[in-house]
Amino acid sequence: MTLEPYRVPPGVAARLADWTTDENGGLSKEAGQDQTAALLPVLAEWQERLYAESKQALLIVLQARDAGGKDGTVKHVFGALNPNGVRVTSFKVPTPEEQAHDFLWRVHAQVPRRGMVGIFNRSHYEDVLVPMVEGDLDPGAIARRLDHIRAFENLLGDHGVRVLKLYLHVSPEEQKARLQARLDDPSKHWKFNPADLQARAAWDSYTRAFDTILSTSTEAAPWYVIPADRKWFRNLLVTQLVLATLQEMNPSFPALPFDPNGVTIE
Amino acid sequence: MTLEPYRVPPGVAARLADWTTDENGGLSKEAGQDQTAALLPVLAEWQERLYAESKQALLIVLQARDAGGKDGTVKHVFGALNPNGVRVTSFKVPTPEEQAHDFLWRVHAQVPRRGMVGIFNRSHYEDVLVPMVEGDLDPGAIARRLDHIRAFENLLGDHGVRVLKLYLHVSPEEQKARLQARLDDPSKHWKFNPADLQARAAWDSYTRAFDTILSTSTEAAPWYVIPADRKWFRNLLVTQLVLATLQEMNPSFPALPFDPNGVTIE
Repeated sequence: MTLEPYRVPPGVAARLADWTTDENGGLSKEAGQDQTAALLPVLAEWQERLYAESKQALLIVLQARDAGGKDGTVKHVFGALNPNGVRVTSFKVPTPEEQAHDFLWRVHAQVPRRGMVGIFNRSHYEDVLVPMVEGDLDPGAIARRLDHIRAFENLLGDHGVRVLKLYLHVSPEEQKARLQARLDDPSKHWKFNPADLQARAAWDSYTRAFDTILSTSTEAAPWYVIPADRKWFRNLLVTQLVLATLQEMNPSFPALPFDPNGVTIE
Repeated sequence: MTLEPYRVPPGVAARLADWTTDENGGLSKEAGQDQTAALLPVLAEWQERLYAESKQALLIVLQARDAGGKDGTVKHVFGALNPNGVRVTSFKVPTPEEQAHDFLWRVHAQVPRRGMVGIFNRSHYEDVLVPMVEGDLDPGAIARRLDHIRAFENLLGDHGVRVLKLYLHVSPEEQKARLQARLDDPSKHWKFNPADLQARAAWDSYTRAFDTILSTSTEAAPWYVIPADRKWFRNLLVTQLVLATLQEMNPSFPALPFDPNGVTIE
């Protein structure tokens, strides 16, 4: 499966509406799940190389609407990695301390160190999405935030942090079904947040805001739009993307700076 | 399998020599692996409850000699948890900034927040072990550090953080075999650190230092000595211990503060 169709081309005014939400890649669910299961151990091997080499880092930014599948992706894809080398950061509403700084301050502090895979479960893009939808910032201020984000991601790229940005793309019907499931199943009640209904009511405003952040797609820090109505297809595509990215980064096991045959363990 | 024999009784001068390293619990390797594989999904369910409830946290401290199996335990046991709710912190040689503070400063900052499982891959106990072996601190200073650690762990316990401390217990023969494997296998070269041979040469000094830190075992923050020559038995015992601890903490899915049947999703 080629991944190019899911990449947001740099320098183009992209629109979410250009991607479908319910794709299956021509696969049955079972075949897709088998492919993912076969790829995850390979992903873990590449992660071990990244960790062993400790010269580069990978930062994966996950954005989606509520119930879009961020948590499920973390669980089912990144759960296959060695926890020694992964750090998930879930960004919530900023604390007073965080609000007393620029919007990238708390984000910068969580950038993965060399050797690590960092996952941002929500990210600095919330600081564009929310004010756009709520009208708290004028278009000039939004444009400046996007510029700051581009500069920040360039900084990371220049210092060995590869940035991969994933938008998990669900339809309004699929979101409705998932929110309803959270109401119906007592073991999922804790995931239900009434504020999600307000965001759902602002569906089109969010679509415009997501279209806007896709404009930060660059060669070095691309956005991918992941059809996410089918969880198994989403998992497969994310697995393939992260694997392809790690293979392109091509970390290698470092050599010993001495001859191992010359060492005797007493 | 009862876990009590592996617990270091509070208020007793414990000695590592009182525990064996090569136990198998009367199980074959295959039976042990099957048991672990069956328990890990149950562990993940309890972790989800902890995360959903978000009222308590679990901090697991891993200590061992080099090649004692800390990384393998993280990979094979904690790898089964949802990465959204786990954070591993690997403590290295303190940076100048860290050294400019008290020895618990950097540790305190990494204590898991409510809902989370925190894993300390090495910990504040290194700040007792290393100076004891290297003779950098006199016995009075060591005793004060141990008091500070007890007070710190009491603080955590009083604020909903359960502390579980695991010493992975390997024999000198097993350590030798594992270090040799790191020399023999090029994909393991990155794990070989010549400094480990110096620590190995100081085996008995480290044993005395470990005996000393076991004196911080309390009801609220117990030490367990895990026979770790057999990796499969170590994984089984750690899985059972963490599961038993979570069950004792007994987190529950929170109820909704309103009637879910009264909500309509437009």
